[in-house]
Parts: sequence; C-alpha cells; structure tokens
Amino acid sequence: MPIRKRMKMFYRSKRLDFQSGGDPIVVIREKEAENQGIMPGDKVFLQWNKKKSIVAIVQYTNSKVNFGEVGLFKEIWQKKDIIDGDVAKVALESRPESIKAINKKLLGHNLSYDETYSIMADISSGKLGKIETTYYVASGFAKAYTMLELYYMTRAMAMCGEMINSKIKVVDKHSIGGIPGNRTTMIVIPIIASLGLYIPKASSRAITSPSGTADTMEVLAPVEHPVKKINEIVRKTHACLVWGGGVNLAPADDKIIRIEKRLSLETHDKMIVSIMAKKVAMGVDYLIIDLPYGETAKVHSLKIAQKIAKKFVSLGKMFNIKVKVITTQAKEPIGAGIGPALEARDVLRVLQRHELRPLDLERKAVLLAGKLLELKKFCRRGHGKKIAEKQLLVGAAWEKMSEIIKAQGGCSTIKADEVAIGALHYEIHAKKSGRIVHLDNRAINEICVNLGAPHDKVSGIHMHCRLYDKINKGAKLYTLYAESQGRLDLGRLAAKNNTVADIK
Amino acid sequence: MPIRKRMKMFYRSKRLDFQSGGDPIVVIREKEAENQGIMPGDKVFLQWNKKKSIVAIVQYTNSKVNFGEVGLFKEIWQKKDIIDGDVAKVALESRPESIKAINKKLLGHNLSYDETYSIMADISSGKLGKIETTYYVASGFAKAYTMLELYYMTRAMAMCGEMINSKIKVVDKHSIGGIPGNRTTMIVIPIIASLGLYIPKASSRAITSPSGTADTMEVLAPVEHPVKKINEIVRKTHACLVWGGGVNLAPADDKIIRIEKRLSLETHDKMIVSIMAKKVAMGVDYLIIDLPYGETAKVHSLKIAQKIAKKFVSLGKMFNIKVKVITTQAKEPIGAGIGPALEARDVLRVLQRHELRPLDLERKAVLLAGKLLELKKFCRRGHGKKIAEKQLLVGAAWEKMSEIIKAQGGCSTIKADEVAIGALHYEIHAKKSGRIVHLDNRAINEICVNLGAPHDKVSGIHMHCRLYDKINKGAKLYTLYAESQGRLDLGRLAAKNNTVADIK
Repeated sequence: MPIRKRMKMFYRSKRLDFQSGGDPIVVIREKEAENQGIMPGDKVFLQWNKKKSIVAIVQYTNSKVNFGEVGLFKEIWQKKDIIDGDVAKVALESRPESIKAINKKLLGHNLSYDETYSIMADISSGKLGKIETTYYVASGFAKAYTMLELYYMTRAMAMCGEMINSKIKVVDKHSIGGIPGNRTTMIVIPIIASLGLYIPKASSRAITSPSGTADTMEVLAPVEHPVKKINEIVRKTHACLVWGGGVNLAPADDKIIRIEKRLSLETHDKMIVSIMAKKVAMGVDYLIIDLPYGETAKVHSLKIAQKIAKKFVSLGKMFNIKVKVITTQAKEPIGAGIGPALEARDVLRVLQRHELRPLDLERKAVLLAGKLLELKKFCRRGHGKKIAEKQLLVGAAWEKMSEIIKAQGGCSTIKADEVAIGALHYEIHAKKSGRIVHLDNRAINEICVNLGAPHDKVSGIHMHCRLYDKINKGAKLYTLYAESQGRLDLGRLAAKNNTVADIK
Repeated sequence: MPIRKRMKMFYRSKRLDFQSGGDPIVVIREKEAENQGIMPGDKVFLQWNKKKSIVAIVQYTNSKVNFGEVGLFKEIWQKKDIIDGDVAKVALESRPESIKAINKKLLGHNLSYDETYSIMADISSGKLGKIETTYYVASGFAKAYTMLELYYMTRAMAMCGEMINSKIKVVDKHSIGGIPGNRTTMIVIPIIASLGLYIPKASSRAITSPSGTADTMEVLAPVEHPVKKINEIVRKTHACLVWGGGVNLAPADDKIIRIEKRLSLETHDKMIVSIMAKKVAMGVDYLIIDLPYGETAKVHSLKIAQKIAKKFVSLGKMFNIKVKVITTQAKEPIGAGIGPALEARDVLRVLQRHELRPLDLERKAVLLAGKLLELKKFCRRGHGKKIAEKQLLVGAAWEKMSEIIKAQGGCSTIKADEVAIGALHYEIHAKKSGRIVHLDNRAINEICVNLGAPHDKVSGIHMHCRLYDKINKGAKLYTLYAESQGRLDLGRLAAKNNTVADIK
C-alpha cells in the first residue's frame, strides 16, 4: 500500500476581499484540489519566491477563483505583498507525522514515543479531525498494545495537557465506576487528608449514570475552580474534591472518548491509559484503584479484573507510581442513596456517624483508605483499616471534610439531614414475601435518570433493602424522589417498567 | 468490552412549531440525551400508547424544550394527534445491526453475509456516518479478509446498488489504473463489439491523474447517460463507453473510497472488492484485468501482482465470472498522449490506422482483446491476438467505435487529427545526448495536471521519446499543450521543476 506522493502545483495568485481573522486561508477550485489529493483543511506551503512563502489552510471553492488560480485571503496578500497573477508554487505540507504514525499502527506496527506523542498532540490541537482520530482509535483493536506502547500512550496523553508538578508526595484513590452509589471517594479523601497526607482529587461528572463524584460533591460545594484556586485549596486542606473537566488534564482523552462512544467500545487497555494519563498529569505517587467486577459492572469477571490489575501495577511502575488494585465483587449498589443529593446525604451520614449511615459504604471506604495508608507505608500491613476507622470515629474525617467544603466555597456546617432531597416522593413496596435474590443496577440507574438525575440534583432513589434481605409483602423496597410532579410521574413509569428487586 | 444496554426514558411531549419537510424529528436537551447515550442523528422509538408510536430522528437542543420534555416537530404531533404533556416512552432503536457487525469485525471476528450486507446497506443509505464508516474501513487492517469475506463484501456492495441483469453473456476489460496514457479500453471495446460480443463499459474519471477513460471518451462523445439510454446504446452497438459514476453501481464503494483517501490507504483486497463489486453489478461473465506492476504503479512487484491475480480469479469463480489477469511490467506511459484530448487522438490514430499511431498502445490493446476472446472461448488459445489485429486492420474496430460514438451522441466521422488539441504548446528538448534510462510517470502526471488536465480537455503532454531511445542533444523530448498562456506557463514551471527523462 503505497502512500501516494503529492503533486506540486503552480497557481496564479488572486487577491480576495476576505479576511479570516485567524489562520491564513487560501481557496482552490474543489475539482482541481481533489484531483491533486488536497482536502479542505489541509495545510499547504505556498512559495512565490525565495523570500516569500507561507503555510496556509485550504478551503474549497466553486466560484471565487478559476482553475489554475489560488485565492488568497487579505491577511496573506497584504502581509506578503502579492499582486494578482503572481505565480505561487503550492505543495501539500508533508502530511503530519501523526498521519504516518496512524498508518503504521493500522498496519500492525508498534509506535515509538515520538510517533505516539505526535498523534496525541494533533488530536488535542484538532489538527487531526474526527475521521483520522477514528482511524487511530480503531487501530487499537488490530493488535493488543504492548506494555511499552501503553506507557507511551499514557505519557503522551498526559504530556499534551496541563501537568501538575508538586514536590510533595501525593496519594490518590480511583474507582473505575459503573456501580450505583459507591461514593467512597468522598469518605476516603477526608480520612486520608486528616492524617496529613496530600490527596487532591479531580473527579468526573456522570457520563451515562445518575451521578458522578463531581455531581455529588457539588451538592455540598462548588467543584469548578481554576488551577490556581485548586492549588490554594490543596495547600490549605491537603485535599480537594473538584471536577476534572475544569482542568486541562490529558485533553486528547476526552476527544478519543467521544469517538469511542459512537460504537460504545472502549478496550480495557484504553481505560487503563485514560485513568493513568490523568494520574500522571496530576503528579500522583501512590494510587489505590477500586475495581468492581460483576455482571453489570464494567469488568465482567475476577479473571479479567486480575489481568487489568496487573497492567495497572506494571504501568504505574513505569511512571514511579505505586499502584494497588482492590477487586471487589459488585452485585448491588453501594450505599442507600443513588442520585447527587441522596448520595451526598449518605456520605455525610457516614462522616457524621449518623445512626442511619449506610454501613456497606463505610466499610468499603475504610477498606480503601486503609489499603492506601499501607501502600504509602504510613503504617504496617494490616493496620490501615483500624487507623482509617479511627479517623471516622473521632470525627477527624468529618472535620477535614468540613474544611474542604469551606475551602471550596460550600457550607461547612451542614448536617446530613439538612441536605435538600426531592420534595416529592413515592414509595415502591414488595408485591410478595421472600428473599431478594437479585438487585438490578441497570434498572436502578434507569429509574434515577428518568427522575431527572443528575441534572435535578435532589432526585433519585433511596434503597430500603439489600441483596439477600428477607422481606415481607408490602415492605418498602425503595423510595423515588423528584423535584417536580412531572419528573416523579416519569420516574414512576420507569419503575413500573423495570424490576429492581427480584424476590423469591 | 460490553456493549452498553440503552435506557428507556419517559418524556412529556411538547409540540413545536417546526417542520422538517422530511424525516420526523424530535428534540431533546443535549445534556439529557448525552447522559442517556443518545447521539444527534440517532433513531428513537417513541410510544405514547399501544396505538400511537413512531420512529424519529433525534436532534439536540439547549433551549427548545426543558429537561424531561421531548419536542415534536409538527409532522409528528399533527399526524399522531399528540397534545402537550402526553407522556411518551422513548427508546433508542436497537442500534443498527451494522454497528454490531462493525464491532464484531473490529474485535477480529469474521462477518456473515447478512452482517456484511447490513454494513454496506447502511453506508449506502447514510445511516452509518463518517465515523462509523471509518471504523469499518479501519477494521479491514486488523486481520486479512478471508476469501469468503471478500465474497460477502463484493456481493453486498453490488447488491446495495443498481444491478444490471441481462440474459446475454457480457464480457469486460478492466485496468487497475496508475499508468499515464494506457487508454487500451477505448480500443479493446470496439474490437470486441465488432465481433458481435457484448461489452458494455462503465469507466471512471480521473481521481488523482490527468485523465480517466471517461474523461478521454468524453472528448469524442457524451458519457453521462441514464440507465435506460445506456441499455439502448448497448442493444444497438453491443457496447458502450460511459461514466460509471452516473449509474448507481455499488454506491457504498464511493463513500468508502472517500474515507480511504483521508489516509491514502487502500488495501489490495479492498481494490479487488471495489472492482469486482462493479463487475457483479454490471452482470459481467468474462473479464480480462490489466494489472501493470512496477515502481510507480499501484502494485510494486510481480510477486504481489500474482497474488492479487489469484484472488481476482478465485473471487470471480464464486460469482461465476471467468477472470484472467494480464500482468505487465510498467516502466513508462502507454501511448504518446497524456491528457483527455491527446489520448483520444492516440486512440483514433490506432483505430484509423494513422501512420503516427502509437504502436505500444496498439500492441497492448490487441494483447488484451485477444486474451479476452480466448477467455470467452470465441477462439482457441493462441488465436485471439490475430483476430483482434484483423478487426483493426480491416477497419471493423473503427466502424464499431464510430457507431458507439454516434449512439452516445458524438460526431461519428471525426478523424484523429481533427481532435482539438491545446492551441498553445511548448517543446522540451534534450539537454544532452545519450540513452533514456528512466521515464518518470509521476513527473509526467504532475506536469499534465499543472497544464490543466483533466479539466482542460485539450491540455496535456505528447511524448516524442520512449524508454531506452538513443537521442541527441536538442532532440524533442515532449511537447506541452495548454488552452491558455497562463496554464502553459504553469505547466512550463512544473516541467522545469521535474525531470521527465533521465538521459545517460
């Protein structure tokens, strides 16, 4: 498959009364440009003589110029002092390095770091369009990436965006997501920070779920801050709980994810790269990863989970990040609330030792925090959990969370039961007695989204039952919350349409 | 990699004062739709009750409706008699079969015929957009296609467009292209048709060259005709020389080629499929393929050429098409003229036994015609060439060409030297004496395109020398022809910039 050599063309200049206000633009007749293999948006090198030349972007035209003419926007002819008829030699700028690199990868060859970087940089800057980016994304299916390639991708992705370099050792906790509730992050962060460690956290918003950590935290305090302000918050509290999208971390990743969404295909390798690139950019030194597996989770089996875990650890080593992956089986939501406000209430209940606090959420948060302390060698193996528990018990974790909320501009004295929950609610009851043998995470998500989450922060579900509970006919299974009657009605329809709890 | 199950959403209807004039359209808030995994352009199924439902296309909005509302274009609410507030259940139409098939291929699995057909049909109809089509194109690099897959692709590609079914046995000749000049088609067709065989020919225009067969034929007669008219021409003359783009043959192919152009990557397998799909659609029974190989040709070596030849023959068998591939080494242009009119003149010179006719072009045309006659069992092996030669000698081929020109609406009495050639010309002379050791096809193409070919039909180059000729300093090497002084100047600059003939 030869890569065709591009033609060099000679054109007579034609001055146009157009200004782009930005990039220098030239126009060529569509048919002529096409026949020369020049696409709209391509960069061409125009040379009038040894001293006069410019790189410009091509637009097609069917009227502004004749065949054999190149139309120049005012910026160009004014700056270069060109008159009508001046002959320019026009050559396609050798296709960007990144295009060649994509070709190479598509043909099954491994890429060097420079090649990978050129792709990530050109995706970030928009030099590579959607079609070219799709080719690159698709090239990842042709042949599994080697560890070295994953390393290159991760490093290049991180290097193309903001890099937060601190001289302080930074720890982090990340969940690969996919399980309703599961707001352990908002408990782990204050536990860890309350012990004096640095744990700045950039989280995502919901992508296709009722809430992301950033959505839930936003119930308690603003999460969008400029980098300068974030640094200040971290200096003050040793932590933060902000929205990652507000910081320009690994920008190529967001564009790649948009392409992946079109086929709903993301390889596990790509997921690993996405996560690690952001950790590299954030300057993380110690990282605990929460990796739930199960039928409705992102990872379907323990075996695959373990494979992924291994890659996380290996990749971490290459960046000098100590990584530990905690695999847990995911069969039901973590915590009772699903939806931003309901989850925020759960988090506060755990931190404030509320009698109705969800113990499963507390247990998981303590487990992760403990493992992180052990990984950081803050304590010996087997001692982390106790230390983490103690921070909750003595109120240090809540005190720290209160500081973070205050630093981010929220109300630091808020009590769990003061969190505003949807004024309208509707209870769903068991239709028969028996044991709950299955809880459907997907159905729970669907009902919450119908209720308006994450846009309506106060909407969502509060679960009254857990997997394997024995319940009687008529017992409360879960309560729907909504902001408006309209939304509550839509949520009720969704609840009617879905079986959340299987009773046998 | 799980394919996420899509949510079912409930929305309150809102009647909008918009009409699309075409497809039924609904609008949803961008953030809400995104969170539900619904993309602009996706098809959704809306159901108000058992009797009222519709499939509509989603557009995003940020203002026309509120969260929880679906905006209906007038066509929908009028037809379905919907009032504001009616609740609709909205579900993404199960993603088209073709998306699933593309996923499957990307993951390295072979596709069934039905899956392949769904992809080709959805590419043809535009249901699959550019990003999805790119994924499909890229999937071809992941793993070589099996012969069965090539068969499915070819058949599906053909089936998605116009199928010309005739009960008459049809023969054809195809060149994979890439060599300047090489207008054998316009000589082979009349030779074959003059013997009573049916040889309707749909050719392409130049893609990135100075001329395609359709461009050259257009110098002598119109080449764009509706299918009905083409049938009439074929009935009358047993042949035609029309532009394939005017007939809806294998429409998916054109869209795929546009995607391939972005990276200048076309696999040989894909080239085979493209060609054969059109032959299947045309109902061809016997096919000679002209496959030149060489440094500047599409195929670089005899070894690769032979591999490709084998695949052509195997694929042909599966469609009951008898295929023979003629591989020839390509080191220089075929014929003397390059550019539509100059090539047309060469063709007429051969057909009309002009004393200046290019003998290489004649020889190659006779070879191909002879092989086709043998393939069709019109004569015994080894006798085809003589028969073909005779048709030229006795004037039967020209008589037939004259008929075809007339049937297509051209001037049937035109003499070779009456073909209008660019009024302006400029000769390039040898700078030293010696032997021509190399002729640069790429340079020739580049100069012709700078002279305005194929848009300016009369422009191009006439070669006065051939490879291995001994020449004296000052001898004519080639002449540039152009329509205007401006274009001639541009061509001269290109000629200055390129060495066409290497003399040693």
